[in-house]
Amino acid sequence: MIRIAFATRNEHKVAEANRVLKEFGIELYPANVEKLEIQSDDLEEIARVAAEHAFKKFGKPIIVEDSGLFIDALNGFPGPYSSYVYRTIGLRGVLKLLDGCRKRDAYFKAAVAIALKNDLVMVFTGVVRGSISLEPRGAYGFGYDPIFIPEGFNRTFAELGEEAKCSVSHRARAFRKLGEWLASNKQLLSPNNLNDDSGGE
Amino acid sequence: MIRIAFATRNEHKVAEANRVLKEFGIELYPANVEKLEIQSDDLEEIARVAAEHAFKKFGKPIIVEDSGLFIDALNGFPGPYSSYVYRTIGLRGVLKLLDGCRKRDAYFKAAVAIALKNDLVMVFTGVVRGSISLEPRGAYGFGYDPIFIPEGFNRTFAELGEEAKCSVSHRARAFRKLGEWLASNKQLLSPNNLNDDSGGE
Repeated sequence: MIRIAFATRNEHKVAEANRVLKEFGIELYPANVEKLEIQSDDLEEIARVAAEHAFKKFGKPIIVEDSGLFIDALNGFPGPYSSYVYRTIGLRGVLKLLDGCRKRDAYFKAAVAIALKNDLVMVFTGVVRGSISLEPRGAYGFGYDPIFIPEGFNRTFAELGEEAKCSVSHRARAFRKLGEWLASNKQLLSPNNLNDDSGGE
Repeated sequence: MIRIAFATRNEHKVAEANRVLKEFGIELYPANVEKLEIQSDDLEEIARVAAEHAFKKFGKPIIVEDSGLFIDALNGFPGPYSSYVYRTIGLRGVLKLLDGCRKRDAYFKAAVAIALKNDLVMVFTGVVRGSISLEPRGAYGFGYDPIFIPEGFNRTFAELGEEAKCSVSHRARAFRKLGEWLASNKQLLSPNNLNDDSGGE
């Protein structure tokens, strides 16, 4: 099992990543590294810069993830600032913006970046298309899960629960791409780079 | 006249700053420096980090400015992300969020940071309180000016025009504090630090 640091304090994200990465023989462990998040309309750029910065602080390969909800009728809003928007106007505010709006298409996107060396950062993205519900529904998950209905379903992420979310979610898709790529490029992960303080190899 | 670089490409901002700084014997000139804007709920922190970063790139004293509109009923939204929100949901979206809302209090805030040396960054803030109009009104200015009515007036910034805005605006207030401080601390601005490429002393 290869262990790699994941710059996050969100245990749900670690668990979601590890459910996907297990089959590739990879396990992430949370690392409390100062995270630099720049302002940009481009999730990939935010993740890339954060990974470069985290590597400088941490000195070993490290993964960062950033994600957002992009609503077509709102020109992509809340996008990279989904977390801030959730904390301020909330689900009710987002639904109010869509009041009377028939076109409710949206997508969740995740960008997962891994910094392997100072100048070697790879970014993988995952997208799940869907639509915004008329009301919040369901209790599973976090953030915008209660108002997002993934394509091919008629229930929200918060109604569907862990297993369905894990099979179609943007984050799961991005981590799957990372896993596939790492499985083919293990030589980049020299063992002495990966030892963490909390356990052996 | 002391000339200092201002990391912006917005000529309106340079002009607004110079109208205030003239009386302190200071003139800003626009400098095309890569700007690092972090995600934070704290405007001062965004300006401080941007100034530190700009100094590293530029090597001479440099000023950055960041500002936002904070609406009480929306928990401060759009705040530090005012520019992104303006580009996506726009004035109409912000007004829709306040539909049926009687409490329309808001404030504009600006944070002006000057980096004088690697470890010497000073931040000055300016605030103007007011309220959000029911409809956009007026043609002067930019951004949220058409929906912001400053306290003591019954017209929006976009109706009031240049002079009124310059006398009460958040940005003018922050630059005034900077000017006052610089006037008392001129020794920090050694002349050989300030020469720019576009003119002599």
